[in-house]
Amino acid sequence: MTVQESRVNGIDTSVLQETVKAIQADPELAKCTFRVSNQWVGGAHNRTTVDGFYGAKQEMSHKQRFQMDADEPPMLAGQDEGANPVEHLLNALAACVTTSMVAHAAVRGIKVEELESQIEGDIDLRGFLGLSPGTPKGFTTIRMKVRAKASSEDLKKLKEFSGYSPVLNTITNGAKVNVEIEGK
Amino acid sequence: MTVQESRVNGIDTSVLQETVKAIQADPELAKCTFRVSNQWVGGAHNRTTVDGFYGAKQEMSHKQRFQMDADEPPMLAGQDEGANPVEHLLNALAACVTTSMVAHAAVRGIKVEELESQIEGDIDLRGFLGLSPGTPKGFTTIRMKVRAKASSEDLKKLKEFSGYSPVLNTITNGAKVNVEIEGK
Repeated sequence: MTVQESRVNGIDTSVLQETVKAIQADPELAKCTFRVSNQWVGGAHNRTTVDGFYGAKQEMSHKQRFQMDADEPPMLAGQDEGANPVEHLLNALAACVTTSMVAHAAVRGIKVEELESQIEGDIDLRGFLGLSPGTPKGFTTIRMKVRAKASSEDLKKLKEFSGYSPVLNTITNGAKVNVEIEGK
Repeated sequence: MTVQESRVNGIDTSVLQETVKAIQADPELAKCTFRVSNQWVGGAHNRTTVDGFYGAKQEMSHKQRFQMDADEPPMLAGQDEGANPVEHLLNALAACVTTSMVAHAAVRGIKVEELESQIEGDIDLRGFLGLSPGTPKGFTTIRMKVRAKASSEDLKKLKEFSGYSPVLNTITNGAKVNVEIEGK
């Protein structure tokens, strides 16, 4: 098989296959720690920086430094200098489900020609504002609609592959979050 | 009180107070639907667009359109054109906890001079890759360390305010995610 032939859906499946083989031989290689740092800019505006992560038993650098700005719209007392945090959460979910579907399809030789999605969730601000103790503060249900160019049989498989998404699993199963605060 | 005096931590607290009053008079105003759309670019690269949301009983536009790119590093068969989806999730959480602390401090007249954070979570890739059915596919514990310039009494309050964060609540309590797929 040539390098050209190992590429499905724009993904070099030989890289994933090598990763799988290496992890099967040494499961420690699978352990990753992802991390970001965030700097409060002022008001509702803050900025996240992503430099690298730990994986394959070593510190890894991204090819470039990534920065993401978050802010709130004026009705929530912000200046609208970035998507707001819950929109960033929906972004993470849409991105992760998309990549999970496309990558799992690729290693199985299933070609996807086009794929797009819309994702939405409801929030009752009385929770965040502390006006109603019984009102959830976050999303309780999130709806994602995916449109893909693939056979109806493959569409069913894509839906199954969405179940591999780490972000989807974190949100549906829940995760513990430890927040520690110290002075500076 | 002048406009100048109503600004704490860079947040115009009079805007939040007006929002609170309006919602107390008409709880329907608190209902928001946030949404993003995502376009698969190719491989592990996809792009989210954020235009507007529904809130205060009307469609609202952001001041500008926001776009966020997601990709994977080369070891995960990507081209590193953006932070990866789980890093985007950590960004959403860091941003939301930061804003929740600063905004709740502001409406209580608590001044925060500086605030920054680091956040990390572990993922065992055997889950995502489908190599180990018993291994969680997402984060199970996320650690956030915040450093703020504030009195020790106020630091305790900031920690308490983090509990209002919609993203933190979504992740710790979990949310249902409905994924629908159709052909195009």
